[in-house]
Amino acid sequence: MSILARITSPTLLINEKITRANLQKMAAKADRHGKSLVPHWKTAQSHEIGRWAQEYGIQEVTASSIKLAEYLCGQGWDNIHIAFPFNVREIGRLDRLAENQSISVQIVNPVTAQLMADQLTKSIGFFIEIDAGYGRTGVHISDFETIDEILKIANTSPFLHFKGFYLHPGHTYYGVDKAKIHEESREALHLLKEKYQLAYPNLITRLGDTPGCAVMEEFGDVDELGPGNFVFFDLMQVQLGSCRKEDIAVCLAVPVVDINLERKEILVHGGGVHLSKDVLVNPDGSKNFGEVVLLDENGWTIPAHYSYLKSISQEHGVIKASDELLAEVQIGDLLGILPVHSCMTADCMGEYLSLDGRIVDHAEGCH
Amino acid sequence: MSILARITSPTLLINEKITRANLQKMAAKADRHGKSLVPHWKTAQSHEIGRWAQEYGIQEVTASSIKLAEYLCGQGWDNIHIAFPFNVREIGRLDRLAENQSISVQIVNPVTAQLMADQLTKSIGFFIEIDAGYGRTGVHISDFETIDEILKIANTSPFLHFKGFYLHPGHTYYGVDKAKIHEESREALHLLKEKYQLAYPNLITRLGDTPGCAVMEEFGDVDELGPGNFVFFDLMQVQLGSCRKEDIAVCLAVPVVDINLERKEILVHGGGVHLSKDVLVNPDGSKNFGEVVLLDENGWTIPAHYSYLKSISQEHGVIKASDELLAEVQIGDLLGILPVHSCMTADCMGEYLSLDGRIVDHAEGCH
Repeated sequence: MSILARITSPTLLINEKITRANLQKMAAKADRHGKSLVPHWKTAQSHEIGRWAQEYGIQEVTASSIKLAEYLCGQGWDNIHIAFPFNVREIGRLDRLAENQSISVQIVNPVTAQLMADQLTKSIGFFIEIDAGYGRTGVHISDFETIDEILKIANTSPFLHFKGFYLHPGHTYYGVDKAKIHEESREALHLLKEKYQLAYPNLITRLGDTPGCAVMEEFGDVDELGPGNFVFFDLMQVQLGSCRKEDIAVCLAVPVVDINLERKEILVHGGGVHLSKDVLVNPDGSKNFGEVVLLDENGWTIPAHYSYLKSISQEHGVIKASDELLAEVQIGDLLGILPVHSCMTADCMGEYLSLDGRIVDHAEGCH
Repeated sequence: MSILARITSPTLLINEKITRANLQKMAAKADRHGKSLVPHWKTAQSHEIGRWAQEYGIQEVTASSIKLAEYLCGQGWDNIHIAFPFNVREIGRLDRLAENQSISVQIVNPVTAQLMADQLTKSIGFFIEIDAGYGRTGVHISDFETIDEILKIANTSPFLHFKGFYLHPGHTYYGVDKAKIHEESREALHLLKEKYQLAYPNLITRLGDTPGCAVMEEFGDVDELGPGNFVFFDLMQVQLGSCRKEDIAVCLAVPVVDINLERKEILVHGGGVHLSKDVLVNPDGSKNFGEVVLLDENGWTIPAHYSYLKSISQEHGVIKASDELLAEVQIGDLLGILPVHSCMTADCMGEYLSLDGRIVDHAEGCH
């Protein structure tokens, strides 16, 4: 039976070829610049896609939670980094995880460092996360007092090993001048390296965000690149200029349940529980929860005429359809939706279907 | 060990007492008006909470998808209604489901009716969903031609049984005049009943939305009430005037991972993958992704001073904190977050923890 004929309900399709091309391209770029690529695996959250990544020389990954780190454990990763300010309620769990897997975490305050120093029984690497303007999390770039205090506490513990500085310039998602943000971030990490490398000659710096890593060509003395979303990309990244629509590697297949010719709308089974509620704004001010592509046995193609999800609720999606789409579509058909935010969509869906009909794993409930 | 001490990562708490009070109150209201309460179980998605509901005389429920209907099957429900325009790709699955469970679906077009008539092998009830102004889905209230065509097709099938008309006036979530919307919806169902009850003397009408059912006291000749969210309520319902904050029955426990006294912000592990990205707007124009409550061994209390989630990303939540909260909170503490949209939060989390420490089931991945 053909793959489309097998699909009866909302299903997240993955195009392995595009995914591999995205991995290969970013790995080659890191290589060209003499950097290590340590992708953020919160996007793919998959063993199988991890094996694809390993084929391009990727040896370490980053997780967004301890649950995801547990899922990724034992898959041949040289190290799994948990890129979230460490939650001290999970020290016991971290200890257990570190029994069989090299693990690192992020520390952003001395209280956390002290509790870890007091309670850890296994060796853990840590980065100090730096805030150079994003303002979400991290030690402020000029707050050397806090950095020094964390390092001082860590030095009292045989289990806490300082690896370096981590910076996620998430404001490239909002800022107009991505190049400037990237330069400031690089410069911040450079200054920290200069200041601390005498005491810590092996310290590394990591910079991670897809909009920056996809577009920039100057990485200075940063050691590691840590983007995540680039594995799949999505419409948000297209809008940010990180990729083309053709680079998007996942697509939600949705069944058509009703058609309203008068309103030029198509009702599909595909809503917030499948796509999440991330949204973009079209040039005319209308909301866009995903863009329609046409499915066939080889994957999907982007039609010449634009149709998009104008609204979604928990299970419903309402497509604003082009005349061309309306002329073709029938109740019971499947349409494809390119997601606004692929990380969240993959997290909602919990597994992928490859174009040759295999289930590709995704950590379930790893929040 | 106390329940709070056991929690190390984001956990959805359920207060059974509040949940039961919400169920009891709505059941009593339906009873007082001589209506049947058929709650939409997309909110709770639970066997155990279903048993609580059955104690208040609730005998039928509604599911948002065939997957959820499958999960709820065999739990003693007299009928499970799937309140979504039926997806013809799932006729085989519906047949299997109907082997051991009384099931009904919604039909909104003749194409679907015809395919079901052609392919069904088991008895299925159906409602015709009516659109009386919401504009998302359903046959337009004045489109008798479509209604008649669906009924004509159904009459050719021994397996399709017309139950009546279903109306979800979802625009009560957006409209200023909820009373007017409710009156129009009631009137629409009344006219349909008058027109069709000679041919279908047992036809029933169902009206379902929490803002309407929670507040209105006039239901006319509507037979069944079908609200869903009222089981838990949430901040959106508080804003709509459907309930008080004290009626909200679920709360996300989140660990504090960092505190920024200067910015008056608290960073917690709790983001879009836990809460979904539904958002409200505070009176000052800022965004609100959830409101902070204080946890204790008996549940949670609403503090006198307002603190709220000002931003969330995939895993991070940033709380804008009151001075009073900042004076008390410590890294490693747990805070509670009342959700903006409890249906989506429960769907993200996939299970509940009761205040006496039991896991309460929630259908996993039932989209």
